Amino acid sequence: MLTRRHFNGLAVAAAARISRAQEPGRKLGFAMVGLGRISMQHLAPSLKTSSKAQVTGLVSGHRDKADKMAAEYGIPAKNIYSYENFDAIADNKEIDAVYIALPNSMHAEYTIRAAKAGKHVLCEKPMATTVADAEAMIAACKQAGRKLAIAYRCQLEPCNLRAMELIRSGKLGKVQAIESANGFNIRAGEWRLNGKLAGGGPLMDMGVYSLNACRFLTAEEPAEIKADWSVIDQDGRFAEVEENVAWSMKFPSGIVASCNTTYGANMPGFYRVHGTRGMLHMEPAFGYEGLRLTARIQGEPPIDEPSQEKDPVQFTREAEHLVDCIASGKDPRISGEEGLRDMKYMLEIYRSCGRR
Amino acid sequence: MLTRRHFNGLAVAAAARISRAQEPGRKLGFAMVGLGRISMQHLAPSLKTSSKAQVTGLVSGHRDKADKMAAEYGIPAKNIYSYENFDAIADNKEIDAVYIALPNSMHAEYTIRAAKAGKHVLCEKPMATTVADAEAMIAACKQAGRKLAIAYRCQLEPCNLRAMELIRSGKLGKVQAIESANGFNIRAGEWRLNGKLAGGGPLMDMGVYSLNACRFLTAEEPAEIKADWSVIDQDGRFAEVEENVAWSMKFPSGIVASCNTTYGANMPGFYRVHGTRGMLHMEPAFGYEGLRLTARIQGEPPIDEPSQEKDPVQFTREAEHLVDCIASGKDPRISGEEGLRDMKYMLEIYRSCGRR
Repeated sequence: MLTRRHFNGLAVAAAARISRAQEPGRKLGFAMVGLGRISMQHLAPSLKTSSKAQVTGLVSGHRDKADKMAAEYGIPAKNIYSYENFDAIADNKEIDAVYIALPNSMHAEYTIRAAKAGKHVLCEKPMATTVADAEAMIAACKQAGRKLAIAYRCQLEPCNLRAMELIRSGKLGKVQAIESANGFNIRAGEWRLNGKLAGGGPLMDMGVYSLNACRFLTAEEPAEIKADWSVIDQDGRFAEVEENVAWSMKFPSGIVASCNTTYGANMPGFYRVHGTRGMLHMEPAFGYEGLRLTARIQGEPPIDEPSQEKDPVQFTREAEHLVDCIASGKDPRISGEEGLRDMKYMLEIYRSCGRR
Repeated sequence: MLTRRHFNGLAVAAAARISRAQEPGRKLGFAMVGLGRISMQHLAPSLKTSSKAQVTGLVSGHRDKADKMAAEYGIPAKNIYSYENFDAIADNKEIDAVYIALPNSMHAEYTIRAAKAGKHVLCEKPMATTVADAEAMIAACKQAGRKLAIAYRCQLEPCNLRAMELIRSGKLGKVQAIESANGFNIRAGEWRLNGKLAGGGPLMDMGVYSLNACRFLTAEEPAEIKADWSVIDQDGRFAEVEENVAWSMKFPSGIVASCNTTYGANMPGFYRVHGTRGMLHMEPAFGYEGLRLTARIQGEPPIDEPSQEKDPVQFTREAEHLVDCIASGKDPRISGEEGLRDMKYMLEIYRSCGRR
């Protein structure tokens, strides 16, 4: 365990490094760890217009892919790493932070190695595949005096923030119940269907959005969780992970939530919040763009607020949130602890299903 | 227990009576049992234009209310009954059937007394407040050779039938998951908040629609049920019944469902069915009019089918369904057994909540 004094010492040392990272005009340098769709088509492009962050490094097992991307982003060959020599990023002053966009079960290893290399971490959701891994990730970043953020875009996104505001302000009245769902029909062959890499099925990948939304909408932690799961399609896709999960949650105030997730059908991401004074409906709720909030509240004009934002603005925002937290020394709103809580609740869902 | 021979004998005797009830040009005579909103503003008016059924009797504890309605429907004073002399309907040949629209816990007594008086029964949902009562109602009607139908309007309603057809035809592909909710913000003082009369809260009254819909949409019976309940509002309304219930169900094929019901907030009745080839959404799903089915299915043009029907057509339909079943000797689609199944599942939901 770190003592408070030791931790403060680390924090001061970290602050010194931070001030270097935040020299006027210098953008925070991010290395992409894993060059899949989300990093190459969303996060990396999102930094092209950022005044606060830029892509300065690449980590990949496919050198050709990395070279191609390096050319696009003007990244020198010395800033391209493999998973083998990844730890050498410690010596690269152009890399301040990493974006972990690997299969779920690899999040822990690369977050911890990044922290040990003195880098801040933005890690994709789900944070990890076990509670122990999530805890180890938090501990490693703390010990290194580095920030850890989990890529919960929605918690920073204006439509979702507006939904939270309608609830927090009391306009919706006392919240009673929430419905939410999120899923899609997955293709065979994805790593998401590999139990070892994914750690679970649609719950880990898609259901986590509903779970996290129920938590950020209520600003409460579930006190009770019950769930059912199934595999319907016997086409080989679901040998290692579940296909469907339905679960209910009860929060300390009494708010109940019923949620669904699937890898077997198109299931548009949405949530509905029922308060004593009205209802709000967000759909799409979790997408990269095109979000839309509608609400009917007593004594208020009808609300219909489609987001005008385009992808990949949400990715710019989450990366810049980490930059801001590094500069200010504040903990990210979308912290490792936030990811850990979802890990624990997902484990409870699996337990209720008899899957753990 | 009835033997088959004895039962057949009863059926023949019943058929003889039925043929009297179905003389050419003669409409089946219904007595309204309980003159509340649903009987006086929906079912009775719905028979004004029916060629198959008419209101011929009234049963009420409020003679003045009954007299007023009798005048409107041209019902003679001799066909007005109180709860005390109700059994005398046995001698009234103008009354062939009763419509039970009483508080839930009274459904059993008046269904059984009606059956013993030789009358067919259309009983509001929920069928009863206990499984034992529901079983006794079925047994009484069987023994008397009379039909028992539960007022599950939706199972006869075209939009809901169309949803079922999209599923049964295979157009939606294999169904994976369903979301459904139904509830409203109840006013203090309603009998629905009286535990003895209502037998339960929003689950019995509103959640039963979602439960029944999940069953008629899947054509399966839930194999597993898990639930959470709560009371949030400490304003005296929920001293005897629950305010909120969230529950999940798993069906034998693996289909999962997540449902919500409340008496604490506006919660529009809806369901969504996710199949491998598309999704259908019904909303409003359970109302007296204005229902709307939308669907997006691979290879099909978008479906957007709002119902053009006006209230109280759904009530005409359920009453005439009973008339048709009496004439044909067939069991109602919306049978007592169908109501009993929902009673058992609601009990399971309460058990999972720790409320029974």
